[in-house]
Parts: sequence; structure tokens; C-alpha cells
Amino acid sequence: MASLGFIGLGIMGKPMCRNLMKAGHRLYVFDAQPDAMNPVLKEGAIACVNSREVVERTEVIFIIVPDTADVETVLFGPGGAAERPASGKIIVDMSSISPIETKEFAQRLFALGIEMLDAPVSGGEVGAESGTLSIMVGGKDAALAKVRPYLDVLGTTITHIGDHGAGQTAKVANQIIVALNLEAICEALLFASKAGADPVKVRKALMGGAANSRMLEIKGDWILAHRFQPGFRAKHQQKDLNNALSAARKLGLALPNTATTHELYSALVGDGSEELDHCALLTALERLSNHRLA
Amino acid sequence: MASLGFIGLGIMGKPMCRNLMKAGHRLYVFDAQPDAMNPVLKEGAIACVNSREVVERTEVIFIIVPDTADVETVLFGPGGAAERPASGKIIVDMSSISPIETKEFAQRLFALGIEMLDAPVSGGEVGAESGTLSIMVGGKDAALAKVRPYLDVLGTTITHIGDHGAGQTAKVANQIIVALNLEAICEALLFASKAGADPVKVRKALMGGAANSRMLEIKGDWILAHRFQPGFRAKHQQKDLNNALSAARKLGLALPNTATTHELYSALVGDGSEELDHCALLTALERLSNHRLA
Repeated sequence: MASLGFIGLGIMGKPMCRNLMKAGHRLYVFDAQPDAMNPVLKEGAIACVNSREVVERTEVIFIIVPDTADVETVLFGPGGAAERPASGKIIVDMSSISPIETKEFAQRLFALGIEMLDAPVSGGEVGAESGTLSIMVGGKDAALAKVRPYLDVLGTTITHIGDHGAGQTAKVANQIIVALNLEAICEALLFASKAGADPVKVRKALMGGAANSRMLEIKGDWILAHRFQPGFRAKHQQKDLNNALSAARKLGLALPNTATTHELYSALVGDGSEELDHCALLTALERLSNHRLA
Repeated sequence: MASLGFIGLGIMGKPMCRNLMKAGHRLYVFDAQPDAMNPVLKEGAIACVNSREVVERTEVIFIIVPDTADVETVLFGPGGAAERPASGKIIVDMSSISPIETKEFAQRLFALGIEMLDAPVSGGEVGAESGTLSIMVGGKDAALAKVRPYLDVLGTTITHIGDHGAGQTAKVANQIIVALNLEAICEALLFASKAGADPVKVRKALMGGAANSRMLEIKGDWILAHRFQPGFRAKHQQKDLNNALSAARKLGLALPNTATTHELYSALVGDGSEELDHCALLTALERLSNHRLA
């Protein structure tokens, strides 16, 4: 059993930290919002005053925080992981952030003797709780070999995509498809509804053929019922598409439907719907044409 | 065993006509390109000089031709099905055409005593040959009940969506999702490739999660290998999206990603790629950013 670090005890981090404790490990934890640590502290985790202390006390440190700037703060901000050289440590960033900045972070940490892995997840809160996440890893084989036993506690599918940033790149690709497939479902069902066909029957017919998708299976019902309790929040979907577009801009790549879909999420967030499930995208298209799906 | 009419002996119509003959029926056929009839004539079908003769000789007539204007010609053009009143006949239009014009066609035929069903299919040439098409039906219950035994020869899933036009509406919804899911895959894999990750590994990781779709399963390999032999042709995908957009315009509905994707298909057709598989959409995005997927 190992001493492990865990930074970020939010919706995803809390159950992931718990699963590592249930597997018998001693967890040293930090969250910039101290209250977020309370549930795992009650179950035996040990609180640290900042990220630096987590890195001082452990060899393998997991991070899962909202966005690129949050990861940068954890790593390089005041009281951050990089405040003193720490040879032999491995930092596993499971946040979903920019693949380009991830490469830079990995280089800066490597100069300090710290190995980094990017290991974003898909599967949501349910997957985090049940330990069935899909984990996409970027970084060195040796580092992955050392942390794989812990990743096996957190997820069922661990895929080594490539070098630093490749895990985040795969996650961005995942989020592009998820959002664009949802948007496609919304356009198609709104079309059917506006043309006078029953969208429930249309969805059922479409699930039997080439139009089927995990999104149509999982979120088709939610969309038809205007059921938007999260789930995966619209503001996070917007952030992921923004990461896709800003990385694509730096790479010199045009992503036309990702761009349009990002704008629809901006409209959704502007409507105050940022905490709703990402399939609430439907309502942005409903407002656009003043037609409610029915 | 019945005498049935079949108008349109193209890639889809020929194997469908054959399956009806194999089921023991006598087929009266017509195609505006007489050579297209030869294969089924050799197998026992009876040639008619025009669509009107097909309707004169049979009670149930199947049509499968390329686009809305072709159906209009078959029904209402010179030598067309509507040239004389024909009470008690049922015309089953299995083409993929405009749902709005379909409603008009059904009304005009009804005034002549002819019942119409719209019954577009999905499943492609393979589904047509094996009799495993998915068939989406719009029109009256009584008419569907009469032709269902024949539809059961052609397909495995027959879904009655609603009244006249509802079958075409469902097919348009299907084609919106198919095209937009393909476009999403192309954007995501191009992003992964341009960011330096192996798109083969990324696709494999994504198939395990929320981004999976029938298109990712079926066409993901084709896209990664630049394998564009049809399959379902780009020009037909473009036509379907054009049907979606022109119907949506009449209905007063905005379909932003359908519009962008239609434009990408226009670029593809402009490049002379109209006979390639619809997943050749990749090449339009590759050219746009001067980056080849690899």
C-alpha cells in the first residue's frame, strides 16, 4: 500500500480519491476550497496546506481540477508542486485541459526532475464512483508502468495514446465528437418535430441504423423529455470545445462544426444554463427558431 | 403471389426487385434508362413502356429513383402514373426525397383514387441485396397493412412513423445525423493527427466511450485508410442534406451544422469526388487546412 497525493476533490476527484482509499492506500489531499476536502478527511485522508506539501509527502500525485489555468496554479503557482526540486515524483494530471499547454507543463516539470503524465478521463461522475472510467494517457512508458496499478483502481480502460499531451489530445477529440453528435441529434429531432413527425418514433427508428450513437442511446431520452439535470455540465462542454478551438488555432487547423457548436454553448451559458447537462444545447436551437421540441 | 410494379432499377432498385421476384411475385418494371432493366428482365421481369403502364398492370407499385424531381416525373410527368384515374392502387415511394413535396404528391394522388406511402430505406446496397433494409413509413395504416408482406421481403425493420411525409422526415433526420457524425469524426481525428497523436489509437480509445457511434464503428477505418470506394456516394449525401435544408427553410427552422456540412459536401462535389463514399468528406477538411490525416 502506498502514500498517494490527490489534488482537487470536486465532483470527479472525491469519488476517485475514495476508490484509492478503499483499495488500501493512504491519501494526502489538497483542494483550494478547503470544505471540498471534508468528506474524504472524515474517511481517513490527510489534509495538506497546499500542493507543495502534497508533493513533499508522496511520490505519486493525482490532479483533477477544472481547467488549464487551475492546473498551472497547482503546478507552478504560490505553494505549487514545482516550488522545490523533487526528483523521482510522478504527477498524473487527470483534468481535461489544453494538450498544447500540457506539453509545456511536462517539459517544465521534467526540468525539475518530476515526471508528468496526462491522463484525462471519460465516463463522468458515475464512472468515477464505480471505478469504470476510460483513461487516455500521454507520457512515458516507465511512468505509466509505475502508476498503472492505481489507474486500474480508477478505470477499466487505460489506453496509452502516446507522448506528453497525447492523452489530452484524445480527450479533446472525444469531446469534439460528443458535442457534435449531441448537436446533430438536436438538429435532427427538431427537424422531425417541426415537420410534424413524432420525434420519439423517429429516434426509435434511427437507433436501428447508421445514425445510432452512444449519445443517441444515452441522451436521446433526456433530450425528448427536456430533462437537463447534470450529468455533464454545459459549462464544461463549452470549456472543452474552447480548448479544442484554441489548440486548433495554434496548430493551424479549421474545425467548422466545433466552432459553431461552441458558439451555441456560449448562447446557452449566456442564458444562465451553464449548470445544466450538456444536452440542454437543445434549448439554444429551440430558441434560435422559436420552436419547442414536441 | 401478386403482380407488383417496380419503377427505378438502379443500385438499390435492382436487388430489391430481385428479392420480390425470388419471393415468387410477378414484376412489371420500368426505368427511364432502358438498359437498367436488362438484368431483371433476364430473370423474368416484364418490361413496361412507361410508368403509366406499370400502374395499369399492377395494384401495388414500388418506386425508387434518385431525387424529388424524378419522383415527380414518374408520378405526374408524360406517361406518368397519374395519367389516368386508378382507384384502389397503392404507390410505395422508397426514394429518399423531400418530405414536404411528398405530402403534396400524396394529396394529388389521393384526389385520383391512388393511395401513396412514403417508405424510404436505410441500409444501403448491402441491405438491399440481403433484404435487411430499415424502412421508415409515412401514410395510412390500411395501405401499410396491404403492402407490409412485400416490405417484409425487402427489410427487417419496418417502422410506421406517422402520416404522409413522416417516413421521409425520419429519413432526413437520419441523414442529418449520419453526415454530422461523420463530419465530427473527421474534425476529431484531424485534430488528433495535427496535434501529433496517432489517430488510430485515438479512434480505438474513443470507441470505448461516449463518443462512439455506428459511423465511428463502420467508417472510422475507412477514414483512417483514406478508403473512399462507395458505399454511399457523396452526391447522395449532399442531396439528402439539401433536402433537409430546403425543407427546413420552408418550415422556418435553422440547422447550422447541417448547413456547414452541406457546404463541405459542395466543396467535395466541386472537387470531382461526387462518386466517392460520403466519408471522403475528410478530404474537404484536409484541403481546407492543408493537413493530411496520418
